[in-house]
Amino acid sequence: MSIPKSILAMDEDDSLAYKRDAFLLPENTIYMDGNSLGPLPVSAQRRVADVVTQQWGEDLIKSWNKHQWIDLPYSIGDKIGALIGAANGQVVCCDSTSVNLFKLLASALSLRPGRGVILSQQDNFPTDLYMADGLSQLLGEQRCRLLQAPSNQLQQNLDESVAVLLLTHVNFRSGDMHDMQRLTQLAHESGALVLWDLAHSAGALPLQLDEVGVDFAVGCGYKYLNGSPGAPAFLYVASRHLDAVTQPLAGWMGHQSPFEFNNQYQAKKGIGQYLCGTPNILSMVALDAALEVFADVDMGLLRDKSIALSEMFRQQVLDSPALAELHLISPTDAMQRGSQLAYSHPHAYAICQALIEHGVIVDFRAPDIIRFGFTPLYLGFADVWRAVETLADIVGDLRYLEGRYQVRNAVT
Amino acid sequence: MSIPKSILAMDEDDSLAYKRDAFLLPENTIYMDGNSLGPLPVSAQRRVADVVTQQWGEDLIKSWNKHQWIDLPYSIGDKIGALIGAANGQVVCCDSTSVNLFKLLASALSLRPGRGVILSQQDNFPTDLYMADGLSQLLGEQRCRLLQAPSNQLQQNLDESVAVLLLTHVNFRSGDMHDMQRLTQLAHESGALVLWDLAHSAGALPLQLDEVGVDFAVGCGYKYLNGSPGAPAFLYVASRHLDAVTQPLAGWMGHQSPFEFNNQYQAKKGIGQYLCGTPNILSMVALDAALEVFADVDMGLLRDKSIALSEMFRQQVLDSPALAELHLISPTDAMQRGSQLAYSHPHAYAICQALIEHGVIVDFRAPDIIRFGFTPLYLGFADVWRAVETLADIVGDLRYLEGRYQVRNAVT
Repeated sequence: MSIPKSILAMDEDDSLAYKRDAFLLPENTIYMDGNSLGPLPVSAQRRVADVVTQQWGEDLIKSWNKHQWIDLPYSIGDKIGALIGAANGQVVCCDSTSVNLFKLLASALSLRPGRGVILSQQDNFPTDLYMADGLSQLLGEQRCRLLQAPSNQLQQNLDESVAVLLLTHVNFRSGDMHDMQRLTQLAHESGALVLWDLAHSAGALPLQLDEVGVDFAVGCGYKYLNGSPGAPAFLYVASRHLDAVTQPLAGWMGHQSPFEFNNQYQAKKGIGQYLCGTPNILSMVALDAALEVFADVDMGLLRDKSIALSEMFRQQVLDSPALAELHLISPTDAMQRGSQLAYSHPHAYAICQALIEHGVIVDFRAPDIIRFGFTPLYLGFADVWRAVETLADIVGDLRYLEGRYQVRNAVT
Repeated sequence: MSIPKSILAMDEDDSLAYKRDAFLLPENTIYMDGNSLGPLPVSAQRRVADVVTQQWGEDLIKSWNKHQWIDLPYSIGDKIGALIGAANGQVVCCDSTSVNLFKLLASALSLRPGRGVILSQQDNFPTDLYMADGLSQLLGEQRCRLLQAPSNQLQQNLDESVAVLLLTHVNFRSGDMHDMQRLTQLAHESGALVLWDLAHSAGALPLQLDEVGVDFAVGCGYKYLNGSPGAPAFLYVASRHLDAVTQPLAGWMGHQSPFEFNNQYQAKKGIGQYLCGTPNILSMVALDAALEVFADVDMGLLRDKSIALSEMFRQQVLDSPALAELHLISPTDAMQRGSQLAYSHPHAYAICQALIEHGVIVDFRAPDIIRFGFTPLYLGFADVWRAVETLADIVGDLRYLEGRYQVRNAVT
């Protein structure tokens, strides 16, 4: 493929291009699946090796203090806070997104006695719905009930029964982005709290949780933050709530004085009360190291590049006769979507497999969706141009009909 | 120090001595804190590096299937099962001990409608009490109440109100070991279920969960199993309960078909229903690799060596006039304790610090306890002999009164 000069010029002008060297990516691969699993940062590779060999291997138990393992949930939390518009002391890194959702939903209910509805939307990411449902099953429908509304009927369902509005900011399938400010305000006007899932937002676009007045949020460490497969998640609680909240997963790391081994629970003051079990150090240090890559990144510039990449992709698809059957299910307006484009096609699954075999890593979402993630830290304009050319070759030549593209894709 | 020939002969006769080479331990260190954080297995160092560089770095998202990341909770679970007397399909590796306790306590309550008491003991490990209390706070005392009984009053509190008896098999402080068979039987006779915390048992002594008829258990990956700092925990549910249970932390990994992204939760059949969020791969592969060390270990022989080590230690302390002020708080009968010895001393904290400075790594438990862990895979008889000699030097010369032994020890 001969890359047009205009595309090469865009890469030359790209002020984020140098960040590509912060990642170890396989050769001949265009990785458009960073919204599922971020790639390996050089810093994380180095740091994990050091923590295993030096800290765990040599300093052993002393490392909890000597290397501040015990502080990682907080120090990582504050670094993530800086990316999502949260002042220090409101974000902590721990557990999984699902477990953190459970804690925060329970907190929200405790702050809104007499209101039992968790309002969410039907195509929210399933685990969010499952966790809300699990809490409802545990408490009984009298105390807690999950209401899954269509996305265009959220406002009309915000009545005095709703304790908390639980939404994912950017839809995992379509990339649709909610207006966080408007919905937070609507929820507050109805007396409800908001809980935003930032799985497809944190590290992908600028966020201003404090400024918007968000109550609670959770997010994922292993997608746009590149924190390693299954890295710990994070949670945010606005400081104005920290003195009033409780949460049910009251483990020893959330105790005011865990090493006094008292048999009565006394929650830590502040965000630390959301910790539960012992922090998972190897995964946590990988995430901590991965966050170094963001330290000097202007999230506004990152978002600009993300939009430029996805708009170029979208236009190139439109311009390609071979791709006429691809149907865009993401918003055409870049301001209304996150950092991905999703297309449906009857043979989406086979096309995904063929793309992957040709070095363009994307993912499939049932029943018929191909998802392309745009991650400006390590994707350039030439990469994206090549991805569309490869896609056009595969679809134009019907290569995806070759018998070997059968295996079922398995993960996230 | 000149090691007696009789001690050297014991090391020569030790059929587990070769396992020392499976670990990377710092030089001039006698590590008696493996009951807090296990040391680095050679296999774990190698495996983590490979997973980071090759699997994450090169194969990226494909690794979920290609390298069976998605199966790790089960494959690790079965390996742990083999060490605790659990047939395949009843143990899964996930989350923290605390979070797993919460799931299982809720399951136990759901199996015993009309019974609301979680019976535990006052000096159970605090996080177990805290999690039970958190569940009680969430559900309300009408539905769930934690009763902390003195350890000698468990039987008399096992009445028809008790849904589940929650005990730690080996006490974290004293090393006291419960009679699992007897207490399980007593609980069952009263109609209650049992939930055993195996944090200080799994990997330390032979267990027969299936044979004893245990209902539920949890345990820790980072102590005797050497799975890396904060490694994921495990949980056990007897197969006879798996069709009837529910658990509230119903995340997507516990769904029957997580990758179909349905908005209705349908629990997996079997032990997989206890999974919640995305598995934490780096920590999980470290644990998986660490379990290789146990693959050819006879847990009965390991226990025999553990007892021989601790009995030698205990006798040597008794024989040392300098150590007359150390008061053993563990049972003198080795059959009634786990793989540790705990001594109280008014200056326990300073003595711990001095021991650590002299290369004998132990830990302190408030208010006045020194805890010595016996881990037969990497501790020999000469090590233990040297540890007591060092202790006698420090205590006999009052070295622990030197001003520098002040800093407060912080973790687990």
